[in-house]
Amino acid sequence: MNETPPGVVDLLGVLAYAELTAFLRLAEDAALLAPTLTDRAALGDIAAAEYGHFRLLRDRLSSLGVDPEEAMAPFVTAIDAWHEQTKPRDWYEALVKAYVGTGIAGDFYREAARHADPSITELVDEVLTDEARSEFTVERVRAAIEEDPRLSSRLALWARRMVGEALSQGQRLAAVRPDLAALLVEPGSEDLAEIGRLFARLTEAHGKRMSALGLTPGP
Amino acid sequence: MNETPPGVVDLLGVLAYAELTAFLRLAEDAALLAPTLTDRAALGDIAAAEYGHFRLLRDRLSSLGVDPEEAMAPFVTAIDAWHEQTKPRDWYEALVKAYVGTGIAGDFYREAARHADPSITELVDEVLTDEARSEFTVERVRAAIEEDPRLSSRLALWARRMVGEALSQGQRLAAVRPDLAALLVEPGSEDLAEIGRLFARLTEAHGKRMSALGLTPGP
Repeated sequence: MNETPPGVVDLLGVLAYAELTAFLRLAEDAALLAPTLTDRAALGDIAAAEYGHFRLLRDRLSSLGVDPEEAMAPFVTAIDAWHEQTKPRDWYEALVKAYVGTGIAGDFYREAARHADPSITELVDEVLTDEARSEFTVERVRAAIEEDPRLSSRLALWARRMVGEALSQGQRLAAVRPDLAALLVEPGSEDLAEIGRLFARLTEAHGKRMSALGLTPGP
Repeated sequence: MNETPPGVVDLLGVLAYAELTAFLRLAEDAALLAPTLTDRAALGDIAAAEYGHFRLLRDRLSSLGVDPEEAMAPFVTAIDAWHEQTKPRDWYEALVKAYVGTGIAGDFYREAARHADPSITELVDEVLTDEARSEFTVERVRAAIEEDPRLSSRLALWARRMVGEALSQGQRLAAVRPDLAALLVEPGSEDLAEIGRLFARLTEAHGKRMSALGLTPGP
C-alpha cells in the first residue's frame, strides 16, 4: 500500500506532465518562431531545463513507488487543452507565454506544495526556479516594446487570455481532483478567507511579472 | 585572425545546427506521435541529450573565437530541407528516423572529423554517441515488426527515402562548402579510391543499423 497522500501524488503528477509538455511546446516554439539561431538556442536552453525538471519529478514519483505515467494521466486533457488554446502566433507571444503563462501555473503548484512534506516543497521549489527563463524573456520583450510600443497592448491582451484559460483549466482540475484542490487551502483554516489570500498572492505575483515585461496587468 | 581551419569551423557549425534541429524535431515527434506518456518521455530523453550535444559544440565554437550563429548559418537551408522532406507520419517512422537517419548523418560527421585535430575528433565522437537512442529505438521497432510483420517493408522504404534525401542534401552542401567536403577525403590520397572506401564504410554502418531494426537494407 502506498503511503504518499493522494494530493501529493497528484501534485507531482500534474507538475511532471506540465514540465514534460512545457519542454516539448517550448522546443516547438523555438523551432517555428525564433527569429534568429541565437534566440532559437536560448529558448531551446529553457526547454531543456524544463526537461531536467520533468526528470526530477518522474524519478521522485518512481522512488515513491508511483508509476509516473499513471500519476500524469489525469492531467493530460487539461494541460493539452491549455496549450491548444494558447498557441503563440509569433515569437513575442511565445516569450510572454514562457514567462507569464508558465509563471502563473508555477505559482499554483508552489502554493499547493506549501503544506506538503518539506522534501516535496523543496523539490517543487527547485523545479519551478525560473531565473534563466525570466531574464531572457523579460529582456527580449522589453526591447521589442521599446522598438514598437503598439506591441504592448496586443501582448497585454494575450497575457490576460492565457491567464483566463489557465484559471478555467485550473477550476476544471480542482473539480475532478479534490485531493489536489485541498492542498491549496490550509487545513483547518476558514476556507473563504484563505482562498482570498491565495488569490491576492497569485494576483500580486502575476502583476509583478507583467510590470517586469513593461505590460499593464489591468482588467 | 582566427587560426581554426575553415573546414573545422564548418564541421562544428553543421554539427551544431544538426544537433539543435534534432533536439527540436525529436521533441516535436515526441509531442505529436508518441503513443504513451512513457514513450513520449523516452523520446524526450533522447531529444534533451541532443540539446546537451548542441551546447558542447556551441561552447567549443565560442571558445575558438567563432560566432556559433555565423558558423551554423550556411547549413540551415540543407538541414531544414532534409527534415521537411522526412517528416515522420507515425511513431515508427519517427523511431526509424531517430536511429537510421540520424545515424547516417552522424557517420558523415565522424568521417569528416577523422583527420581533424584530436581535440575536435574527441568532441565529435562524444556528441555522436548514440547508445541510449539506439537501444530504445531498436527495441521498440523490433517489437512492433514482430507484432505486425507488414510494417517491415514500409519502414525499409522509409529508411531508404531518408538516406536518399540525406545524400542529396549532402551533395548540395559539399558543392557549396568545399572546405567541409575536403575533410571527407584524406589529404594526398587518390581521391576516387578514398571516396570508394568512405562509401563502403558508410554503407556497412547503415546496413548494420537496418539489420539491428530487423529491416532489409536493399534494394
